[in-house]
Amino acid sequence: MTYPKIPLAQTIVQLCKAKGIKHIVISPGSRNAPLTIGFTNDDFFNCYSIVDERCAAFFALGIAQKLQQPTAVVCTSGSALLNYYPAVAEAFYSDIPLVVLSADRPKHLVGIGDGQTINQKNVFDNHILYSANLKLDLKDEKNVPSHEELPIFKNLENKFERFLGLQKDIQIFNEEEINTAINFALLKRGPVHINIPLDEPLYETTDKLSVNPKPIEETEKEPDFEDYVLKSCLEDWNSATKKMILVGVNQPNQIEKKWLDELAQDDSILVFTETTSNLHYSGFFPSIDQLIAPLSPEEQKELQPDILLTFGGLVVSKKIKQFLRKFQPKHHWHIDPKTAYDTYFCLENHIEATPNQFFETFLPKVTHYVKSGYKHKWAGVKQRRLKKHKAYLEEIPFSDFKVFSRVLKSVPENSVLQVGNSSAIRYTQLFKLNKSLEVYCNRGTSGIDGSTSTAIGFAVASEKPTVFITGDLSFLYDSNALWNNYIPNNFRIIVINNQGGGIFRVLPGHKNTENFDTYFETNHNHTAKHLCDMYGFNYETAHDDEGLKTTLKSFYMESSQPKLLEVFTPKGINDEVLLNYFEFIR
Amino acid sequence: MTYPKIPLAQTIVQLCKAKGIKHIVISPGSRNAPLTIGFTNDDFFNCYSIVDERCAAFFALGIAQKLQQPTAVVCTSGSALLNYYPAVAEAFYSDIPLVVLSADRPKHLVGIGDGQTINQKNVFDNHILYSANLKLDLKDEKNVPSHEELPIFKNLENKFERFLGLQKDIQIFNEEEINTAINFALLKRGPVHINIPLDEPLYETTDKLSVNPKPIEETEKEPDFEDYVLKSCLEDWNSATKKMILVGVNQPNQIEKKWLDELAQDDSILVFTETTSNLHYSGFFPSIDQLIAPLSPEEQKELQPDILLTFGGLVVSKKIKQFLRKFQPKHHWHIDPKTAYDTYFCLENHIEATPNQFFETFLPKVTHYVKSGYKHKWAGVKQRRLKKHKAYLEEIPFSDFKVFSRVLKSVPENSVLQVGNSSAIRYTQLFKLNKSLEVYCNRGTSGIDGSTSTAIGFAVASEKPTVFITGDLSFLYDSNALWNNYIPNNFRIIVINNQGGGIFRVLPGHKNTENFDTYFETNHNHTAKHLCDMYGFNYETAHDDEGLKTTLKSFYMESSQPKLLEVFTPKGINDEVLLNYFEFIR
Repeated sequence: MTYPKIPLAQTIVQLCKAKGIKHIVISPGSRNAPLTIGFTNDDFFNCYSIVDERCAAFFALGIAQKLQQPTAVVCTSGSALLNYYPAVAEAFYSDIPLVVLSADRPKHLVGIGDGQTINQKNVFDNHILYSANLKLDLKDEKNVPSHEELPIFKNLENKFERFLGLQKDIQIFNEEEINTAINFALLKRGPVHINIPLDEPLYETTDKLSVNPKPIEETEKEPDFEDYVLKSCLEDWNSATKKMILVGVNQPNQIEKKWLDELAQDDSILVFTETTSNLHYSGFFPSIDQLIAPLSPEEQKELQPDILLTFGGLVVSKKIKQFLRKFQPKHHWHIDPKTAYDTYFCLENHIEATPNQFFETFLPKVTHYVKSGYKHKWAGVKQRRLKKHKAYLEEIPFSDFKVFSRVLKSVPENSVLQVGNSSAIRYTQLFKLNKSLEVYCNRGTSGIDGSTSTAIGFAVASEKPTVFITGDLSFLYDSNALWNNYIPNNFRIIVINNQGGGIFRVLPGHKNTENFDTYFETNHNHTAKHLCDMYGFNYETAHDDEGLKTTLKSFYMESSQPKLLEVFTPKGINDEVLLNYFEFIR
Repeated sequence: MTYPKIPLAQTIVQLCKAKGIKHIVISPGSRNAPLTIGFTNDDFFNCYSIVDERCAAFFALGIAQKLQQPTAVVCTSGSALLNYYPAVAEAFYSDIPLVVLSADRPKHLVGIGDGQTINQKNVFDNHILYSANLKLDLKDEKNVPSHEELPIFKNLENKFERFLGLQKDIQIFNEEEINTAINFALLKRGPVHINIPLDEPLYETTDKLSVNPKPIEETEKEPDFEDYVLKSCLEDWNSATKKMILVGVNQPNQIEKKWLDELAQDDSILVFTETTSNLHYSGFFPSIDQLIAPLSPEEQKELQPDILLTFGGLVVSKKIKQFLRKFQPKHHWHIDPKTAYDTYFCLENHIEATPNQFFETFLPKVTHYVKSGYKHKWAGVKQRRLKKHKAYLEEIPFSDFKVFSRVLKSVPENSVLQVGNSSAIRYTQLFKLNKSLEVYCNRGTSGIDGSTSTAIGFAVASEKPTVFITGDLSFLYDSNALWNNYIPNNFRIIVINNQGGGIFRVLPGHKNTENFDTYFETNHNHTAKHLCDMYGFNYETAHDDEGLKTTLKSFYMESSQPKLLEVFTPKGINDEVLLNYFEFIR
């Protein structure tokens, strides 16, 4: 076997292997050569080469989103690292384990005017679970005074000084730091940053390891319910006649069916599921906006829950947020092992457990179903809305709304549906999806910056075919995503092209002025055609409903290259069709 | 006149106007709507709409690089802001005044699970001159406890508390912060970040200003030479027989000609000018690598200076850095009003002044020219090298080296030459350029991430025609740069396409293995053709010397769209031609 000669590079590679990090996304560079040599020469790893670090990090994020396992990105020193930041923030808010491995110059060559050198230490401070700043050797640390020590680094420095006092080896310090970082990514689910100083010569290899780093295991802490909290929750639960459960971003098949059955039987419980919750149950309420948007103030008052129980990641629906902030529940409990956001300004309990753990402890203790008309009343409303929804679709012209309806219905069974921000996911939330679909969207930061790369990463790691639906701005933003040698032939992209940021037309802006067109809607005439020619995608288009129907018939069939379908919609009417919808279904 | 209704948005816009910030690069969004409304409705401002924030920031950087005046970028909340980071770091290390204006949610809506929301406060901490975190109103500050106060924010918080004690208005706090930030950008030349919380309704307008913010002027502090430093410098200077002046990145026409004349007359002074120094004088030494690379250890010893005087920004040449670190001068003085990097580990004095200020004080005090053969000896070597250089060009095949020689000669008089990282600028340094050219390259971080966008921004702000020379990886990396409605028709791009990161072949790597091709050189078969079709560039190609000569003849002529020339070079031989060059000219 060939290894890099530098012990620190061996240490990184060996510990990643010991921790089961299999997927390594590498961007080219010289400073990171020892890491590249280490990863690419060991068959344990699946390595990918992606030049644009912004895409590379989102691609890795997609892999980690699928596998729910730490995935690593490797880059050279300098601004390369900064291009990871959008994906790092997305991983931070979406609880996705992303391990950033950045090569750096040795400390004595940082801050002295050398090329490709920035201050990499703790650079993601606002959005990272852990930053490990490795040290090259004692000489590099002792001889050169550190120019840029900030108060925030103090603890680490002290740790290092204690270290020196104990005459321990820098190797042990590094091993501990690497272990800590990877354990954070694993157990706390999120991004971590390991900064790795490497000195020349960078390209030398050896056939023998000179280090034998020890993986340090850490186990997840058991959920710890305070008895009195549970007791008080139970009391409230047993007496409440209006209980709402709201489920945000959630992996498929996470919640045990018996608990869903249990929840579905209780007439006092409304379960609101976002499209990204991947939770399907006939008595539950998807398409939240459809139900809520047309409500009169009196109806809203009636819908106001006594108890709000939430789990899953960030919620897409603005309308449910507005509603719950205005008509706050008496009690809001959020179930999550890590975080509980006070989204509705009335959070009472953060239940630090997984939903299954909580339900297992809690639901068997629920003694009776309280008599309530809460669910049935709203099930009735839902039925009426669905009828109107159907009728509306019949009467509207070709538009974004119609296209989403048609396209979402066309996605083959058992596919993965990746959806772009922001209007794409908002439209998607209005339609009932096939239960066999898994739905994903980067809702951590809700950015338009890396959805295509994420979808491609997901597709690479998934056995299921992946379909990605996106708007034109988001697609063009991440155009470098297609500069990728690993895209499977069954990958499909559908671009809904309304020639700009259609979502801005829906807002109370300054429509049809030159300023609006340029600075809000950002009008353009670009299409995906040239990018498809460039990067080997089969390119198809549709301009009307008939054309769309015909194209979709063969669009998902097996093909020798990935395919992209661009659907052109008339930008002048999209906003009205959407706004009228909420009037119509009232 | 139409103004945004929100007073804080008015304040930002009015202060930018008062401070003379004319160029505003806006990326679409909703949270930043009040700023967009404010800037785009006032004819004082030149506004640009660029969707991809990474490109937007580099585009603004290019404008600021040309004008040496603060230029603003405006974005919405969330990950949009993070995409600015590569350009912010470049501005930080290149001393370019870039004013980042980020819209944010009000404080009570940050960290509670709302969409498009991250922790924007101080997010560029490692690479920013000043971060102003504005406050929406007292209510927003007082009612909600701050979740994420870090030690580093403490001073600011205290300032704010003092404030409350004084019963001052939050408006005054914001005005002071905005003024401080812009003054930093102006006087300290670099990036600043102003984070602006804005609450709904965002789109309302008014025809009357409700605020009248006061610009606060600050004047640049006079250079302050310590007399005893000057005296000791003079003593050393007067007696030294080997004085080297090394000039890094430098704006054209910065140094008064009389000082250059003075320096050129002294036989004990070698002036080494990098291509990016924009300093031309017949007795000076450009093409440093050409002179130094082939030196024997004895010759290097002979070249070792007694005094090294440096000014300008970061130095491209690795060879001069290696040389000066090995053969350190007795004295190294760096002239710069802001920073002095200890690049050669022997910095003795940081002279806090502009070069003109220093020369004006210092040179008249120099009493005599010391007798020395230093310059003449090396002028002789330079002549020999130039002869060999010419001979080498005659005998080599079509390759990167030959292409750069031909292309650089072709650039019309009085053009601006923007050069990409990293092999593009390294090759460019080997050739003598026409004196009328102005040369720029993003050497702050030496990234390949935004060179095209920078060049386009520069071209927009410049009356001179701009030619941009780049490698293929760097060009493809920043492909979204072409998604830009402001590119002048006389803008020219020349892509030297060697199908990957050719520079890696020159390094002591693992050439011609699959791993090398994939992860270092990053082989690809993409061209610029489709991007040209997509974004309205005239596209031309060359595959050999004859074709290149012919194409170049008409390439710079007036045209109705911008033009791109892609030159394909044989990747198998480029590295050898370059390495042999340094042997040949010995």
